[in-house]
Amino acid sequence: MASPAKIGIVTVSDRASAGIYADEGGPAIVDYMTKALVSPWEAVSRIIPDEREGIARTLIELADAEGCCLIVTTGGTGPAPRDVTPEATEDVIDKPMPGFGELMRQVSLAKVPTAILSRQLAGIRGRTLIVNLPGRPRAIAECLDAVMPAIPYCIDLIEGPYLETDPAVVAAFRPGQKPKG
Amino acid sequence: MASPAKIGIVTVSDRASAGIYADEGGPAIVDYMTKALVSPWEAVSRIIPDEREGIARTLIELADAEGCCLIVTTGGTGPAPRDVTPEATEDVIDKPMPGFGELMRQVSLAKVPTAILSRQLAGIRGRTLIVNLPGRPRAIAECLDAVMPAIPYCIDLIEGPYLETDPAVVAAFRPGQKPKG
Amino acid sequence: MASPAKIGIVTVSDRASAGIYADEGGPAIVDYMTKALVSPWEAVSRIIPDEREGIARTLIELADAEGCCLIVTTGGTGPAPRDVTPEATEDVIDKPMPGFGELMRQVSLAKVPTAILSRQLAGIRGRTLIVNLPGRPRAIAECLDAVMPAIPYCIDLIEGPYLETDPAVVAAFRPGQKPKG
Repeated sequence: MASPAKIGIVTVSDRASAGIYADEGGPAIVDYMTKALVSPWEAVSRIIPDEREGIARTLIELADAEGCCLIVTTGGTGPAPRDVTPEATEDVIDKPMPGFGELMRQVSLAKVPTAILSRQLAGIRGRTLIVNLPGRPRAIAECLDAVMPAIPYCIDLIEGPYLETDPAVVAAFRPGQKPKG
Repeated sequence: MASPAKIGIVTVSDRASAGIYADEGGPAIVDYMTKALVSPWEAVSRIIPDEREGIARTLIELADAEGCCLIVTTGGTGPAPRDVTPEATEDVIDKPMPGFGELMRQVSLAKVPTAILSRQLAGIRGRTLIVNLPGRPRAIAECLDAVMPAIPYCIDLIEGPYLETDPAVVAAFRPGQKPKG
Repeated sequence: MASPAKIGIVTVSDRASAGIYADEGGPAIVDYMTKALVSPWEAVSRIIPDEREGIARTLIELADAEGCCLIVTTGGTGPAPRDVTPEATEDVIDKPMPGFGELMRQVSLAKVPTAILSRQLAGIRGRTLIVNLPGRPRAIAECLDAVMPAIPYCIDLIEGPYLETDPAVVAAFRPGQKPKG
């Protein structure tokens, strides 16, 4: 039996990393993945401050040393001076995946006009897909609902583990085969 | 009482800057802001040719020396050889704000299929939000109707002045508080 | 009478270029253009492997030496390690045209959730518009249906030949004039 797929979950927040308040984004992602995935997986979690170099270093560690097939970040994607998660992500990816940010902004825009202020992006580093998510738990779930159906096939294409979802939660789509169910 | 918020309005046009025809884009933006904003503001206007370095210099001057919290440009965003406003904007911003261009193209696309030819972008330079608008007055208003609701909160986040809008014209949205009214 | 407009059609595929299977994307584009265009044109076709430098060289040759007003590529836009068509396109364009990729992903997304995995982009090199299309013939037609109405006017703006379409197939739009019919 294959070893479980590793998923990196990176909370980027000065205050959460300093213990000033509790990390809500990271646990929201763990909850989501627990419900969505039926194939074996394990979380590799980090809580780090809004520092471009430190974020980049963490993404590289989770991709290259830990071998995560997927890394999701939460926080640091707005326009404020300390928001540098997209820049750090850009620094470490080989290939941008512009469709993720476009779709996440589009679904958030149906809820709030300030969705256009989110600078979320995604990209590929080697065999790892990295996706920026927003900071608020409700917005995290909305964004994952939108992009998660495409993620297992994306990970197939970059030669990662075969992720299976619970079709009642996320209808993962793989072209050329019927949705799992 | 706070000094009025400065808004840079940059018309980029070889012909308007040479006096060959009247600038229509700049006055259309002034009219729009006059109707939309109820907090004190003043326009800092420029009319300049389609030259990448000159546009970049003007944006830097309005952001760094004049202290504008918002700069809007009009013109120079198409595919023609002289259209270089997005390149000049890219040259001076620290952070791209991809959601603005995506949304403006989307609303324009509901009107004309050539909306995809617009290369409008937006980004942050220090404490200044810079937004490219199209050249035609009608398209300017359509684009501002789409993005203006998010602009006051964006300027809050980059530590600029508190902009208040007339909710009958623009329903500015700030998360965590009810729309002003 | 003007010489026919040259349109570059570049199939990017390791297997098609090695003769392992037949190129389907290139002929699908030729068929589409044959139906869509009523003004004289000729195809300049290439089938090449998924190599970034070779793709870039081919795009330059078709733009600068062949004088194509439009180059469309098919294949190599996904997240897989060998998919480098967008990177090669980025290497040779002067100006990005982000609206093309955004719209193509949006129309494909109405069909399949994995449309966000497409990294298609477009841009201008001198007097040539370069547009990445997907690999599958059905997806090619969907994407061309979406972007083709804007292409003749784009080519006018970069001082290329006047392309006329069959309005029953593609309703080319030129601002300030009624659709041809």
